Amino acid sequence: MKERLGASNALYPTPTVLVGATVNGKPNFITIAHVGIMTHTHISLGMAKPHHTNAGIKENKTFSVCLPSENLVVETDYCGIMTGKKTDKATVFDIFYGELKTAPMIQQCKICMECRLDRIVDFPTHDVFVGEIVQTYADESVLSDGKIDVSKLKPLLFDMSSKKYWSIGGEIAKCWNVGKQLKTGKT
Amino acid sequence: MKERLGASNALYPTPTVLVGATVNGKPNFITIAHVGIMTHTHISLGMAKPHHTNAGIKENKTFSVCLPSENLVVETDYCGIMTGKKTDKATVFDIFYGELKTAPMIQQCKICMECRLDRIVDFPTHDVFVGEIVQTYADESVLSDGKIDVSKLKPLLFDMSSKKYWSIGGEIAKCWNVGKQLKTGKT
Repeated sequence: MKERLGASNALYPTPTVLVGATVNGKPNFITIAHVGIMTHTHISLGMAKPHHTNAGIKENKTFSVCLPSENLVVETDYCGIMTGKKTDKATVFDIFYGELKTAPMIQQCKICMECRLDRIVDFPTHDVFVGEIVQTYADESVLSDGKIDVSKLKPLLFDMSSKKYWSIGGEIAKCWNVGKQLKTGKT
Repeated sequence: MKERLGASNALYPTPTVLVGATVNGKPNFITIAHVGIMTHTHISLGMAKPHHTNAGIKENKTFSVCLPSENLVVETDYCGIMTGKKTDKATVFDIFYGELKTAPMIQQCKICMECRLDRIVDFPTHDVFVGEIVQTYADESVLSDGKIDVSKLKPLLFDMSSKKYWSIGGEIAKCWNVGKQLKTGKT
């Protein structure tokens, strides 16, 4: 028998990201872990409506999604605690811009995705910003054979139940492969 | 200087889930890792339109999101390789139902969320199903003080770049806490 926990969101851990946007003409960053993948080129950010960043994304229709590694846990958490309404969080990082001009990105993040706003999925409490990825910037130090290597990236995973950041562990198995052993006699 | 990878989706790893739905009157399961969190009670599934499961979710407006632990990696991968059009994947698991009656869930998954379809975010290639969580079912073995303990759950994380399943690692730091040390003199 299973216990009933009520309507409890258990879809964790998720990657913790730093979202960059231009708000009132200035670069700003906010820490978000309510993220999602919609298609191979579309990602989502679930952001409570009072956040300072939301207005900037709506105005410029661009944003960045930067992946902090474990070494940036203090700076990342700081950007989740402070509001851009009162604090200039851009001073914490070195900033660069790409093709879209209004999506600030973080040099210290080894992977940054530059996004164009595709649409907003509206909820009473949240704006869910859907971004189309336009360009992805990577430090060579986290690539293996030209592809992103998560074991080198060491992303910061977030879990709401423990209210903690977690690391990625080891490899378990190959996808679209390890399950083949069940195929015999089942098709 | 960073390298440009093109429009490469780097928002990994994500939790791998088994999505349950009733399709043509029968329980069916599909493995999905293109998931997301939209609000505290709304989650999303990015599912390519040709999948067998999509029609069942549209018909019944219900689905389940079940979290396989590491010990279910073979069964989970199998459900991502085979199509419900040709294979009865429900025979792999013991099934139970909750309040919604048409959202089959998996006994072997230690956490299952029962969802009501909230809306579909439409893309040319994908249906993104947004579910409102109605009830969450948990094995006591993965709870600590009544809350989900990810270190006991041992979720299967997915990374597209390596095409592998990964385990969760260890704790790094407390969220909304470790960043406070940067506050002094910055506000």
